[in-house]
Amino acid sequence: MDASSQAVAQTVRIDLDERGYDILIGRGLLDDPATWAALPGRADALIVTNTTVGPLYAARLRAALGERFARVHTVELPDGEAHKDWSTLNLIFDSLLARACDRKTVLFALGGGVVGDMAGFAAACYMRGVPFVQVPTTLLAQVDSSVGGKTAINHPLGKNMIGAFYQPQQVVCDLETLTTLPQRELIAGLAEVIKYGPIADMAFFDWIEANLAALLARDAAALAHAVRRSCEIKAWVVGQDEREGGLRAILNFGHTFGHAIESGLGYGQWLHGEAVGCGMVMAAHLSRALGLVDAALVDRVTRLIERAGLPVIGPALGTARYLELMRVDKKAEAGQIRFVVIEAPGRAGVRPATDAQVGEVLAACTR
Amino acid sequence: MDASSQAVAQTVRIDLDERGYDILIGRGLLDDPATWAALPGRADALIVTNTTVGPLYAARLRAALGERFARVHTVELPDGEAHKDWSTLNLIFDSLLARACDRKTVLFALGGGVVGDMAGFAAACYMRGVPFVQVPTTLLAQVDSSVGGKTAINHPLGKNMIGAFYQPQQVVCDLETLTTLPQRELIAGLAEVIKYGPIADMAFFDWIEANLAALLARDAAALAHAVRRSCEIKAWVVGQDEREGGLRAILNFGHTFGHAIESGLGYGQWLHGEAVGCGMVMAAHLSRALGLVDAALVDRVTRLIERAGLPVIGPALGTARYLELMRVDKKAEAGQIRFVVIEAPGRAGVRPATDAQVGEVLAACTR
Repeated sequence: MDASSQAVAQTVRIDLDERGYDILIGRGLLDDPATWAALPGRADALIVTNTTVGPLYAARLRAALGERFARVHTVELPDGEAHKDWSTLNLIFDSLLARACDRKTVLFALGGGVVGDMAGFAAACYMRGVPFVQVPTTLLAQVDSSVGGKTAINHPLGKNMIGAFYQPQQVVCDLETLTTLPQRELIAGLAEVIKYGPIADMAFFDWIEANLAALLARDAAALAHAVRRSCEIKAWVVGQDEREGGLRAILNFGHTFGHAIESGLGYGQWLHGEAVGCGMVMAAHLSRALGLVDAALVDRVTRLIERAGLPVIGPALGTARYLELMRVDKKAEAGQIRFVVIEAPGRAGVRPATDAQVGEVLAACTR
Repeated sequence: MDASSQAVAQTVRIDLDERGYDILIGRGLLDDPATWAALPGRADALIVTNTTVGPLYAARLRAALGERFARVHTVELPDGEAHKDWSTLNLIFDSLLARACDRKTVLFALGGGVVGDMAGFAAACYMRGVPFVQVPTTLLAQVDSSVGGKTAINHPLGKNMIGAFYQPQQVVCDLETLTTLPQRELIAGLAEVIKYGPIADMAFFDWIEANLAALLARDAAALAHAVRRSCEIKAWVVGQDEREGGLRAILNFGHTFGHAIESGLGYGQWLHGEAVGCGMVMAAHLSRALGLVDAALVDRVTRLIERAGLPVIGPALGTARYLELMRVDKKAEAGQIRFVVIEAPGRAGVRPATDAQVGEVLAACTR
């Protein structure tokens, strides 16, 4: 336990009344029993992780949890978006039931977005709901997917189609876990960081442009700021619209096109963040085609995404296939696709578009 | 449409603030477009039913829904508790996604408890939650399972282990559907009616004793009263404790033993209501073993359950097996089984019991 770690931990609050919780951001939090002191003492904890992250961090988390739980179990899932399905989810239920874990058991999601989505959905469903804690170990999960209570698994016909809104008890972003993250995953996470600029905060976008090299080099202070500001913006949005009745949809900027890329290529070919990066370029082009923003903003967004090392040209699936894939998007209504677009720099909204407008965007952004 | 049907419809309110809803009870409700007038007009509806109930009532419901929905789809599940699992649930998701149903789609659960549990859980999970309506066609579903928002599927290691608390938009109990119910199912439903007496209302228990013959003969007025009073008691309990933090557990009277019977014999051997009937006899005996009630009350409960045609002797699985099965009950905490017992006539509570006390009860109640 590093005594200085507590001093630098920062807290962002998700304000949802009785479902509200804190996001802790700092270095060395995972090993620090103080991090877990607010949790109720219970008989059983289950760490849900994967075969990549488990060997790196599960033993350390287990040790830190030992003070509050009589038994700390671990289940390791296969790694990757391709495994975000029912049969993998069932490994969690099997593990809980084989150990006769009761409904006071606390689940810990130790890993990236896939682990968080699956552990969260398992927690939502096991005995109709047990508490869970997010311990995101990827940049993408720390800045986006671990916050806000969206959980889900994929269906062969669509991404995140089966899930629940289910809030964690707390989110613990240990920035030290980012030191072991492969560079490709770090870059994928930057896509979700960049996202917050055009939809909510152009000053943050300016900051990312100025500090991209530091972020890519994993400068501790730069990462800390990126995670904290991202979480603040997400908290502000989720606090107003927990169940995506309206505003929250803006967090899906780039995701309608991005999900089509992921699903069309087969889950796991492109990382989620890569698909979202490219999807944001497409969504920026669509914003322009709808007359909302000028070419200069589209170029600026595209350039930053490209400088981050993310793809800005999508796979040539054909317009018809893109449209087919996007029609099962959760935002679609009565067969009409609804796109998150930039309405003005730093402000997003949801709009329909004609097939011709989408075709024009895809012509410019796929190859 | 029978004009007189509206006149006799009665309403019981489930009071859960923004999640509150009405239970409509009457004859001919299913065919009456007025029943569905409160629902929002939407593009898609999906009727979830089974291969037994679908041929009897799906076309009539579809016709009545035609005014409010542009498309009314139907999916027929295999019938029975043995199919209350993930692969059957997935038939609902497949159906929704194959038809590109959006997140405003309304699901209708047309059938008994299994259909209601699965359609409700599918509604809770599809796109993280779509609206649904319960249209129970069995006595058991009308008096118990369709009301209160408990949804779930079974896991090989335990009944109803994977599910959600998810409230319907409304519950429509059309008493005419009980005319096609097999007698064995009618009797199974009476178990849940009888349940409300010892746990909440001994005057209702008196009434059931006096009117059992009329209920077994499907007297319309008797069934209407049984359904209404059962729903009133359930509404009173659920309104105070939606997520089973305390009081709601009393509705599980007979269910801890009952689930062990169902699971131990294999789902579908005994009907759920049959297992609950026998489980209530066991729970009454346990209440006596704990010194809470006298032998006369145990005899009275046992006699009514037997007169209804329900089993009062359980299968001889052995005490060790019963205990093992009951330790995964959702009420168990830290390996200790918690039983719903009669604390006084018309009042129930949750108590632990020693293995010896359970063994004594099983010795008296199994063969």
